[in-house]
This record gives sequence, structure tokens and C-alpha cells, in this order.
Amino acid sequence: MQRNIYFFQEAAAPDPFILGGKGANLAIMTQIGLPIPKGFTITTQSCMVYLKDPNFFEQVLSNQVLKAVAALEELTQKNFKQSTDENLLLVSVRSGAPFSMPGMMDTILNLGLNDARVLLLAKKTNLAFAFDCYRRLLQMFADVVYHIPKENFNLLLKKAEDDFQQTCQQFSLQQHQVVIEQFKAIYQKQGLQFPQDPVDQLFAAIKAVFQSWNNQRAKVYRQLHKISDTLGSAVNVQEMVFGNSGLTSATGVVFTRNPATGEKGLFGEYLLNAQGEDVVAGIRTPENIHHLQTQLPKAYQELLHYTQLLEKHYRDMQDIEFTIEEGKLYLLQTRNGKRTAKAQIQICYDLVQEQMIDKKEALRRIKVDDLEQLLHPTFEANALNKTQAFAKGLPASPGAASGIITFTAKEAQQLASLGHKVILLREETSPEDIEGMIASQAIVTSHGGMTSHAAVVARGMGMCCVTGCEALHIDEQTKTVQCGDLILKQGDIISVDGTTGLIYQGELPCTMVNHDQILSQILLWADEIATVKVRANAETPQDIQNALDFNATGIGLARTEHMFFNKNRILTMRKLILADNFDERNKALAKLQHYQEADFKQMYQLVQDKPMIIRLLDPPLHEFLPNTAHELEELAQDLAVDIAYLKQKIAKLQEKNPMLGHRGCRLAISHPEIYQMQVRAIFNSVITLRKSGINIVPEIMIPLIAEANELSYIRQQIEATIHKIFAENHIQPFEYQIGTMLELPRACLKADTLTPYADFFSFGTNDLTQMTYGFSRDDIAKFIHFYHEKAILTFDPFQKLDCDGVGKLMQIAIQHIRSIAKQKTIGVCGEVGGDPDSIFFLQQIGVDYVSCSPYRIPCARLAAAKARLN
Amino acid sequence: MQRNIYFFQEAAAPDPFILGGKGANLAIMTQIGLPIPKGFTITTQSCMVYLKDPNFFEQVLSNQVLKAVAALEELTQKNFKQSTDENLLLVSVRSGAPFSMPGMMDTILNLGLNDARVLLLAKKTNLAFAFDCYRRLLQMFADVVYHIPKENFNLLLKKAEDDFQQTCQQFSLQQHQVVIEQFKAIYQKQGLQFPQDPVDQLFAAIKAVFQSWNNQRAKVYRQLHKISDTLGSAVNVQEMVFGNSGLTSATGVVFTRNPATGEKGLFGEYLLNAQGEDVVAGIRTPENIHHLQTQLPKAYQELLHYTQLLEKHYRDMQDIEFTIEEGKLYLLQTRNGKRTAKAQIQICYDLVQEQMIDKKEALRRIKVDDLEQLLHPTFEANALNKTQAFAKGLPASPGAASGIITFTAKEAQQLASLGHKVILLREETSPEDIEGMIASQAIVTSHGGMTSHAAVVARGMGMCCVTGCEALHIDEQTKTVQCGDLILKQGDIISVDGTTGLIYQGELPCTMVNHDQILSQILLWADEIATVKVRANAETPQDIQNALDFNATGIGLARTEHMFFNKNRILTMRKLILADNFDERNKALAKLQHYQEADFKQMYQLVQDKPMIIRLLDPPLHEFLPNTAHELEELAQDLAVDIAYLKQKIAKLQEKNPMLGHRGCRLAISHPEIYQMQVRAIFNSVITLRKSGINIVPEIMIPLIAEANELSYIRQQIEATIHKIFAENHIQPFEYQIGTMLELPRACLKADTLTPYADFFSFGTNDLTQMTYGFSRDDIAKFIHFYHEKAILTFDPFQKLDCDGVGKLMQIAIQHIRSIAKQKTIGVCGEVGGDPDSIFFLQQIGVDYVSCSPYRIPCARLAAAKARLN
Repeated sequence: MQRNIYFFQEAAAPDPFILGGKGANLAIMTQIGLPIPKGFTITTQSCMVYLKDPNFFEQVLSNQVLKAVAALEELTQKNFKQSTDENLLLVSVRSGAPFSMPGMMDTILNLGLNDARVLLLAKKTNLAFAFDCYRRLLQMFADVVYHIPKENFNLLLKKAEDDFQQTCQQFSLQQHQVVIEQFKAIYQKQGLQFPQDPVDQLFAAIKAVFQSWNNQRAKVYRQLHKISDTLGSAVNVQEMVFGNSGLTSATGVVFTRNPATGEKGLFGEYLLNAQGEDVVAGIRTPENIHHLQTQLPKAYQELLHYTQLLEKHYRDMQDIEFTIEEGKLYLLQTRNGKRTAKAQIQICYDLVQEQMIDKKEALRRIKVDDLEQLLHPTFEANALNKTQAFAKGLPASPGAASGIITFTAKEAQQLASLGHKVILLREETSPEDIEGMIASQAIVTSHGGMTSHAAVVARGMGMCCVTGCEALHIDEQTKTVQCGDLILKQGDIISVDGTTGLIYQGELPCTMVNHDQILSQILLWADEIATVKVRANAETPQDIQNALDFNATGIGLARTEHMFFNKNRILTMRKLILADNFDERNKALAKLQHYQEADFKQMYQLVQDKPMIIRLLDPPLHEFLPNTAHELEELAQDLAVDIAYLKQKIAKLQEKNPMLGHRGCRLAISHPEIYQMQVRAIFNSVITLRKSGINIVPEIMIPLIAEANELSYIRQQIEATIHKIFAENHIQPFEYQIGTMLELPRACLKADTLTPYADFFSFGTNDLTQMTYGFSRDDIAKFIHFYHEKAILTFDPFQKLDCDGVGKLMQIAIQHIRSIAKQKTIGVCGEVGGDPDSIFFLQQIGVDYVSCSPYRIPCARLAAAKARLN
Repeated sequence: MQRNIYFFQEAAAPDPFILGGKGANLAIMTQIGLPIPKGFTITTQSCMVYLKDPNFFEQVLSNQVLKAVAALEELTQKNFKQSTDENLLLVSVRSGAPFSMPGMMDTILNLGLNDARVLLLAKKTNLAFAFDCYRRLLQMFADVVYHIPKENFNLLLKKAEDDFQQTCQQFSLQQHQVVIEQFKAIYQKQGLQFPQDPVDQLFAAIKAVFQSWNNQRAKVYRQLHKISDTLGSAVNVQEMVFGNSGLTSATGVVFTRNPATGEKGLFGEYLLNAQGEDVVAGIRTPENIHHLQTQLPKAYQELLHYTQLLEKHYRDMQDIEFTIEEGKLYLLQTRNGKRTAKAQIQICYDLVQEQMIDKKEALRRIKVDDLEQLLHPTFEANALNKTQAFAKGLPASPGAASGIITFTAKEAQQLASLGHKVILLREETSPEDIEGMIASQAIVTSHGGMTSHAAVVARGMGMCCVTGCEALHIDEQTKTVQCGDLILKQGDIISVDGTTGLIYQGELPCTMVNHDQILSQILLWADEIATVKVRANAETPQDIQNALDFNATGIGLARTEHMFFNKNRILTMRKLILADNFDERNKALAKLQHYQEADFKQMYQLVQDKPMIIRLLDPPLHEFLPNTAHELEELAQDLAVDIAYLKQKIAKLQEKNPMLGHRGCRLAISHPEIYQMQVRAIFNSVITLRKSGINIVPEIMIPLIAEANELSYIRQQIEATIHKIFAENHIQPFEYQIGTMLELPRACLKADTLTPYADFFSFGTNDLTQMTYGFSRDDIAKFIHFYHEKAILTFDPFQKLDCDGVGKLMQIAIQHIRSIAKQKTIGVCGEVGGDPDSIFFLQQIGVDYVSCSPYRIPCARLAAAKARLN
């Protein structure tokens, strides 16, 4: 015969399908030896039997419950039924289904109170508390057993307080009793009665909890979560304990480690002779948990012991509620404690050192967001609570910064050089703003999305940035920015939160957590586990050094065009583009080659023999041309040509959709001499460094390939140049690699045809996402907020890989490539390279590495490990 | 035992593996009863046996050849060996492999001539001819048998002509004989001899042809074409006949039908007492073939008879070379005759009427290009031969036209209204130029590709257009166009060939073939066979009427935005876009709805209950905004706002990559009221017309869907509007369809998720190709010529579907859709809809219809049938 009732201390292998989740948990904790208030569980089967045949309760269960109550009285040395015994046992009755159904089912506390016993409780605690408990019982019982709305009781209490002109805390005994009678009258109005006999209360409560399995909201919840209707709910009957039973009683909350710092050791507060709510309410100031050691030393030692036991059991920092009733410690609840990012990292590290968890578990627990928080400054929470943002844009690059407003890159540079902290405000940024951007604390743009120029550059530099803040009307002429009624002018101070996208007036205080030894150690653990390697998108010496400091395994993307925007060089680039004859063009090319050669030498000296993929020129040529009238004049003068003529030449280069225009490898088809120059610069620098013993294998990447003929043609051109260079230098040919980007849908769909001509592949997920969605990153800010508001897009596909769409193209490509060339390296260089969910997918489809901006490397390393552990 | 030699008249089932291709053919023609010069074939096996064992020739084959020669003498009643018999038999020896290896192997003519017999031939024909034959024999024999370069002989003859100061035509007998001796001396210099015995000549020739199977170029050719080395070549020995053997001899060429018009009946020319080369050389004027009827009536009758026989055999118009030797007709060669497009259509039609071929064969034979030619005017070939184009652009829309140059749409309209024929020259056209474009004879742009605005509109109107003519420097200010040194000004006349992309100075005469009954009939045959239906892209009443006249099965794409460009409407559209408040916006919307309702009514009245898919607003809003200062002023005045304010508003709408920007369904997410207005206009018009008994099922198409949520959201919005309209009108709901375009890679990759929300699908191959390649149609002209020059792209993917790339996406989409919804209609509306190769692919992947511009419908109908027959 099946047993219908188990005491917490009984069940050998607690089964949630029999005891419910809560019942099983209470059994486990009791068996570990924790001082849990005592009680028993009525099984889920009893529930189902009762629901089919209500007679089962009177015929079978009632007797068994009575026996269990008797046993509980024995165990607790308290009395449930006798209204004369001061040692009164009150119980709670709680539902507990095999699967968690939060808030869906019912609970009644303080069962066992009645008109007589409430006075006993008052004696043991105090009048107000005892009657509060009794009123709650009357209210919960009415709700759960008879479905009488709680409101009725609340209104009545409110009225009594008004009538007596006192709060219920201050009621006299008589006043309390008047209210109790009024509460009972609510029952009577419905022809019902609140049973004075504790056993009657208990029986009614158990039956009501059983029935609550079939209430409407529970049914709907089960349907929604696909939980079987045949499981039933268990009922837990548990002793109530009272921390307000005198000066040897107390109640409190402790953490097993400091939730702010992660430091090991009890951390928490308590109040003597108080109940839990008193701690929360803040009427009395709680005491530091360590004072308990002197006030109730035995209980304190027990608490210390049991909290350590709990931590060992759950292998994580615990947040524990406890009550001491007349010197005896009870643990009421324990859960994994909430903590700051810093604490989480410290705790996980310490738990590994304490051999409580292994490294993998530590990496599983540390969220990438935790790490992200640690790597960027944030505004102090207190300061944020006291102020209101005046505008909100896209959180393009995390961090926090305050400074004075400035509207042009040049001014930003000037002001910064005078020692000011500046915030650069622009409609959009362009590559020429780069030096002003570097000089700023943060960048705010009114246009552009999460992957606009400003966003990409800012993330690349680990700098705070908010983009697409469309509410800002920036007027460069008058040097003002308007946002609704607010008008700010040059020199006004604002604060920018790149993590939330919010912008505030005035200066807000910042905090910055420095990352330390522990973090480095944890990332080394991550590297041990990850199979997807992490490289960096970097080309400046500073960025490359950062990347290496962050343990990048190489440079996945060095964008050669970024080197052309420096003031001297851009003029040469412009001369090249606008050259009217071979001679002019060759002169410009020679000069650019000279620059690039020096750059590459510097870069290779840093990366040494780690892989570094150099991507040849990618953007449309007109990106290098002047935008302003002033620049135009300067250039015309420099080239000694007419402005009108120059304008006409520039106009001819303009494109309607430059993203889909004359760029990438298309430039190499029309102007082979540019790539030729770049290849010469790369090989010249490599040859020099190889002489000094650095074993460099140059890797050259061709962008924007759509068709195998493009790649084979350009590869042939490049190889011809390389062989010429070998011959000219009279050196033995050495290994080099020529690869391609996969950033157009067609390249993915026809990757098999590209494979013979590519030594390696790198997905450019930014462009690939643009083409797959037909979204321009530069323009998306104009409408994407409508998409988010209407939940049409729930994520930004430029931040998080669209696995089903863009990812499908990548899968197709990888299948193609792997079917021909098992060993060729396949990487990803795009914004999604730093996103954990994306890395998980990328690992699944067989990507060898992701390449991201240096400041995202720590997150990517962690994410890569987590992807493996997922 | 295997036979080594077959006479042409012998082999019952001629096997090219035994007789070679040529031998088998000669056997067939002989057996049909055609008067082919007589001869025999030495088998391919003989060749292989000989190549393995050269003794085989002397031991076995030589005797058999001698017997065959004797038999040939008997058959022809001519003598091969005797230098005394005037009835001399000369033969040709030709190789003939089982597979055609053109030019790879060897031939010797006039075998049997020697010092004595050349005089006999001279008597029979004339001195110059006979010695010419003999010299050729000496030369070919030297080449084939001894590999002595032909050049030696040519130089010698040249020298002799110089020495004698006469052409060889004028040589005396003695002079001829001197040259022959010099030719022989070339042999002797190598220690060789030209055999005077015809039999020795024949044996040597046969052996040489056998050996030529293994010459270097033949080996390479076989390797290249994967032809087995073990097949061997047959040798054909055939009687030579001479059309210059006197006044009962003749030679000529006839077609069985007129190659220019297709008219049935002999068509051709001949010369009495002449050889084939005389006809070609044009020294004597040939006579019309019909004169032969009186000159050589018997031969004429035979010719008539045999040519009909040949036509019946080959079931096509034949181009036949014939020779009459002393009254006896010989057919030397026959092949399918070249013909004009018009003739091809007439001939195919007639052959069906004559039951020589069936309709399917007729459709197989008529090329889509033939049809295309017939549908557009062309410049007269003679005129083209005499002139030189000054510029070349992309052949954007076929046709030919001359007219005076004009530089703006407005002027084009004005000049046209005064009765001028005008050619509109612009850098690029925009939708606002539309009326000026309509008024023009042809459009030329210096920018833009095959699918630029100008190209698309021109093709839509069946109007001649050349785009991307980058050599033209158009200056609208000075109203001049410069091309190299040439400067043309407004009013100058040019001629534009839209079929070749060439542009000429001055006026060139045009011809236009009207399409007629026959063409209509052939297209009806096509419709019977095609499974892919043909619809039209059309929205103006004129276009719709054209489409219906061309038998479109419906309208596959009615672009609602095209209706907004009319002068009154665009102002309203601009007001809508720039509205500052709800009131203004609603006023504009109401006005636009009024316009659209009237349009739709007119359209539905034309199409009646044929399907018509109306696509809701697609282009970015800023396309509707003013471009010129004047328009801007006008608009500012009309809106009573400041120009600066207006400029700012317009600037905010500008996008970097409008093709990837805020357009299509994205407009409906941000501005739902526009689609709502359009749906109201559609349904109001449908309701009115349904009352008059036309059973219209409105079909509404949503453009630029990338994500199922977009479609489900917009569908829901549209359906809510529809239900409101039904309710407001108190009418029973009627059937309607809401579908989507598949024009973004993601829509294809995730078509399964779209299927629940789409009643039909239409691929937009233009946009899909743009996204898949990352090519902007507007900008491609800047670099695509480099791609064509370097053969990196061998076709224009906007004209011909890129089956492997773009097509693969389409296949993925169709598989997705069909796996869920077998019956939903899937169409294609894009430029490739009119391309035959593309239609073939589209049929294979299961597309239900293609939709193209009205003027391409005939071609598409034919192509659809051909796709089925392929």
C-alpha cells in the first residue's frame, strides 16, 4: 500500500513526483541535518485520489493526518489542539507540485490559532503580532477555503483603524477582539463559519489546497508550460516558529559571502525579539550579524556551522533567512545569493580554490555581462537614482563619461589638449573625425545605428558611445543642441551612459572596477576550454598592443584603409584617386606604399609570428574625398586644379548606394595597381623582418568577393606581384596565404567555387547581415525603433547573429568549404564576434576563430569557453 | 571477316563508328537517291589496323582499293588510270572520324592528275583551271603526305607571276608547265618525288590520311573533347565533278525557301560553265536560278525534285551547293540555310502547315532573339555599314530611333508637342522625368546600368534606350554633350541603336517588321505548351491594355508608387511626407486615396477577373521629394513653410544607402496609415466593380519582407482595415489574397516562416540579385565594364538569372514553401522574367508564372514554351 504521508526526516530518496518539489526539498534539507522547522508532506497521489473521490479524505486520509499531527506534536514538543497548553504548535499549509508553479497555488499560515489560542500566542510574543497572525489566518482561510475576496477584510480593518483612531499596532485587546468578530461576521454573511477547532482548520486547509490543483489559473499555467494535469499537488504541513518570542529569540538574513565584494565570511543583519518583517520594514535598525556571537553565542555558532553546510551543499554563496525561537535556531529559507559582477567573479574564483566547484562550473556561472560590467566605468547607482535622463539613444558602446559638449572633431581635439574632458556630439561621424573621437570621453550621434561608424570606432577603442539619438537636433552652425524644450550649447556639461543609451545633464560620479589578477586567471581557464579562438580586429600599434595584452591569439582583421585617414596620407590618397595620368598616380602610389610599408613593419614587430590577416582596401574611393568646402579648396590648391573641375570629378565618384557599389575587390578589378601596391608594402616589410629572424607567414585577405572569377583573377594578380618581389629580392620564396571574406550572400551560396582560390576564409558578418536583411547599418536607426517597439525584431542582428537567416548562409558556406577542404581556417570578423549567443552558434557550425575589437576580447574569450560548456 | 571498304550506295544502316561521320552521311544521302558524286569509304577499323601494322596496307588493303577504284570507274563511266582516256576520273580523298573534328585532319583534292592528264582536263574545262587543279594537288599532296609547308609553293607561284608579268589565269601552257616543274623541284629538293601514277597518288594519300589520325593537333583535339584514341578515321574516296566542263555544265547555290522572307520556292543563283568559286568571287554576275529552267530544263527539274527531297529529309529550309557536269546534276553540299528572323518564323509556320514538323518543333526552332528582332525597329544594314558610331553604352532596351538631342524631360515634352522627334539625353533619369521620357523616341543616359531607372522604364514602354554611356559628358547648363573631341548641342540629330548600344551622328533609316497573324498564331501554340504562365508588370491603363493585347494571363505586378509621380499627385505625396501634424497628414492621405481609388477602378475595369497583384508602396519616401531648387521653392510656397526648414526636413529623410533603407514594408511598420489608405482605395474600387458583376478577387502584395513578424504584423493591420471596410459597407466579406515578395536573401532562407502569413509569393529578382551580389543597379555601370572586359562576369545577372547563386536562394525558398503549402502560387516579377534561359530554370524549380513588362510578353511566352520543350 502506498503511503500518503511522509515526515521531512523520513523519505530516503525524496521524489518530487511524490512529495512535490517543495516537499522533496524540505526532506533533503532536513536529512542534511539543517534545523528546518519540522513537518510532514501529504503526497501528490493523495491529492489525485482525493480529487477523483472526495470520500477518500474522511475514510482514509483524515486519520493519517491526525496521527501525523500527533507525531509532529511529539517531535516539536508543542501542542496543536489544546487551547490551554502554552506551548502552542501553529502550522503552515502549503501546496507543492512536482514542477514549480509560482503563485499559481495556495498557502495558509498560522493554522491552529483561534479565539483562545491567540491569547497564548500574545503572551509568548505580543498582542499586536498575535492578533495580526490571527487576522491573517482568518483572511487566508477565507480566501483559500471559501474564495471570499481578501479585499473585504482589508477594508474592514481600515475602517476599524479609522473608528478607533489608532493603527492596529496600538489596538487594545478589546479592540482586537472587536475586529476579529467583524472578520468572523464576513464568514457568517455567506452562511459560513470559521472553525475554532485547529484540526477542522487543518482538514479544511488540506482539502482546499488539493482542490487548488484544479483552479482556473493553475490549469492555464499547466497548459502553457505543458505540465500534465495528472500529477497533482502535495501538501506540506510545517511548524511555524516565531523570532519575536522574547530576548532569546531573533530573526535575520545572512549571506555566506559578501555580495558586493565576494569576500568570504558571514555577512548580514538580525534583530532580537523580532519577526522577519521587522528586519525588512526598517523601523528598528538591525544589528551586524557578528554581534550575535556575543548576544546568542550558541545560535551564532550553529548559524555559522549550518550556513557553511548549506554553501557546501549548494556549492554557491547562499542568502539565508533564519529565525531563533527561544534560543533555538531555525533556517527558514536559503537561495543562491544575488551579488555584484565583481563579487560573482571573486566568489567563483574562490570556490574553485576551495575545491567546491571546478573551473568549468566557474566559467558556466560567470556571465559575459558580469565581465562586461567590470571592464567599463559606470555611473554610481545613487547618483542615477536622483536624476532623470533628458534623451535616450542606442547603447552603442558601454561605459560612462561626463564632459563638456563640443560639435566638431577639431574642437574636441583643441579642448582636450587644453585639459578639458569633452563629449563629441555629431549627427554622424566619419573617418576624418577619428582624431577628435580619440580625444573625447564619449561620442553621441543623432543618427546611425549600433554599427554606424561612431559605434564601431567607439567599441574598437572601448570608449563610451550613444548613437541614433534622434531626439537631439544638432546645429553645428550655432553650436547648440536642442532636445524637446531643452537647449544646450557648447561648453555645457552632460553625462553619457553607453550601457543604457541614456544622456543626462550635468556631471555624474563614476565608478570603475579595475580588472585584476583574478580576472586574468579566469580568462586563462576559459582559454583552456574554448575551441573557438579569439583574435582581434586591430591595425594601429595601440590597438594591436591592447589585443596582445588581452591575450588575442592573433589579428583576425587588419583594415588597411584605416591607415589612410591620417592627415598627410589622406591627401596622398586623394591625389591617387583624382590623378589624371599615370605619372601622378604612380607618384601617389609610391608614397602610399612607403607609408604602408612602415605601418606593416611596426605591426608585424608587435604580433611577431602570431597570425595577422591583412585585408586589402575595402571602402569605396569616394569615402576618402573631401566633404567640406574648406577641404575642397585646400585640395584644389594642392592639386593646382580648378574647384569646379574637382567638384565634377568627385561628383562622378558619388554613388547612390555605396554599400553596394564600387568597393572591395571591385576596386582591384578596375584599379589593380592599388592592391599591387599594398601587396608590395606587405611583402617588403615581411622580407625585412624575416631577415631578423621573425618567421612571418603573411596572410592577405580579399574583401567583397561575390564570384569565383573575381578571386581567381585577383589571386593571380597578387601572386604575380609576389613572385616578382621574390625575384627582385633574389630570395627563396616563403609561405604566404591569400584568403577571402565571405560577406555577400552569393559568396556563401557558392563557397565551393571559391575554395580552390582561398587559403582561408573569414565571414564578414556585418556586411553579410546587411545584405541578407537588406538593412543598411548607416540608415537603420531611422526605423529600427519602430521594429523594437512593435517587437517585430527582438534583437539587433548586427549585435547578435541572426542564426536562422544569416547563420544559415554561413552553414551552407561551411558545408561547401569543408566538403572540399577540411583543414582551411574559417573565421568570423564582425560585431557579432563579441556576442556570447553568437559565439555559441559559431562554434556549433565549426568556425575556428572569432575576431573582435580589442576591448571585447575578454568577453569573447569567456563566451567562447561558455559556448563549449553549453 | 570484316569488310574494309563500302561504296556509298551499299551500307544498309550506315554506322559512323565504321564509316566515320562523313562516310555515313554520304551513304545516307546516296541511299535517299540524291545525285551525290560517287565514291567509297575505307573503314575506321582499316585505319586502326594499319596504324598498328603498316604492312596491312600492302598485304591486304591495296588490292581491295584497286578493286574499288575499278568499280568506281565502272560506276562513273570514267577512267582513273589511263592518261589517254579523255573521260578522266579524278577523286578527292578526305578523312572522316566518327565524331566531327573540324580542320583537325586532312584532305586532298584532284587526285589522279598528272603531267599528261592535266592536258585532258584542260581540254574538258580550260587551261588555267586545269593547271590550277594540278598545282593544288601538288601542294596538298606535299603538305599531307610529306609535310612540306604550303608556303613554299605559294611563294614560287607569286614569283612566277612576277617573272611572267601575268596572273596565272593568263599563263600560256608552257608557262604553266614551267611552274609545275618548279613545284616538282620542291619535292626533289627534299629527295622526294610527286608520283605520276594516279594509283600511287591514291595509295600515298590514303596512308597519309590514316596517319593524320595521330598528328599532334588531332591528338590534342581528341584529348580536349574526350574522344577515344582507338576510334580511327575513315577515308572517303569520291569522284570529282566539274561545273566548268562546257555549256551544259554549271554550278550554283540554292535555298529551298527565301532566306529573307521565308517564302516557299527555289531561291538562288548559278553560272553556266563555271566552278563554285566563280559564283562567290563575283567576277561574272550569276543568273537567277529560275533561268536554269530554260537553259538546262532537265537539270532544273532534277534540282527542284532533289531539293524538295532534301527539305523533306532534313525538315528544314536547305542551302544547297550543286554542280552540273555535262548536263548531269550533282549535289555537293547541303545544310540548314541561314535566314532572317522574319523568314525563320514564316518557315517554321509553313513547315507546320505542310505537316513537315509539328508545333513543338517549330517552337524549338524559333529563337527568342528572332522574336525580339521582329518586335523592334532596326537600322537598315546598308546604312549601318556606311557609318561609324561615336559612342557605345549598354544596350538597355532594343530598338532604333533618330531624333534631335534634348537635355531635360520638360524640353523633350515641349519639342515633341511641336512635332519633333526627340532623343532625351540625361546623366540619369528619375521618376519625375517620366512624361518627358514618354514623349521621346529614345533615351540615352551617361550613368546607370541595364536595370537603371531609364532602362527599366524604357523596356516597360518598348522604347529604345542606351544607358551607362560613360564617354558622354552631358552639360545640362550649356546644353551640350561632349564625347572625346566631338561636341553636340541641343537640336543636333543623333541615331540610337538600343539593340547594340551604339550611338551615331545624324539620322539613319529604320526598318520595322510588323508582327502579324503568323506570329500571333505561333504564340498561341506556345501558350498551349507552356506551363509557366506569363503576366505583365503594368499599372497605367495603356500598359495594361498592351499587356492584355499581348495575351498576358494577368498582371503580376502593379506598382502603386508609379501613380504618385504625376504632377498633381506628387505634390500631395510631398505634403503627406512632410506633414507636421495628423490633420495635414490625413488631408493628404484622403486626397491620395481618392486618386488611387480612381486608378484602381480603371485598372480593374481593364483586367476584369484576371488576376492582378497590386504591390503596396515600395520606394523610400525621399524619392518623392523635390530635387531642384525651383521645385523646392514651389513646394515651400505651397506648404507655406520656410525653405530652410523644408531643406532640413528633407535632409533628415536622406539615406546613405536608400536601397537598403527605410522603404517597402518598413514604411508600413513606421507609417501604417499609408498602406491602410492604399488598402481602402483597392477595396473601395473592388466593391464598386463587384456590384456591376465583375468577380474580382483583390490581391495585395507586401514588398521587402525580411522577417515573418513584419508580414504577420502588416497582414493583421491590413485585415483589420478590410474587415472595417466590409462592416462599413454592410457587405458580405468576399475573397481576397495577401501575399509577399521574396526579394531579400533572408526572406528566401526563412520562407517557411513566411508561408503561414502569405497567400501567394512573388520573387523580386531585381532586388534579390542586388542583395545576393551586393551590387547596386544604380551604381554598377561604374565598374561592370571592367568585369565584362576581363570575363569575370560573362552575363548581366540583372538580365539573366544567376541560377547557381540567386537561383539557389529561390530554390531554397520554394522547397520551404512547398513543404508547407503545395498549392500557393509562386511567381517571379523582375527583369529576368523576360529572359529565356532564366525562364527555363524558373520552370525547373517550380515557378508558376513570370511577370515582365508588356513588350517582353511575346518573348516570354515563347521562352516559356521553349523551357517546357528543352
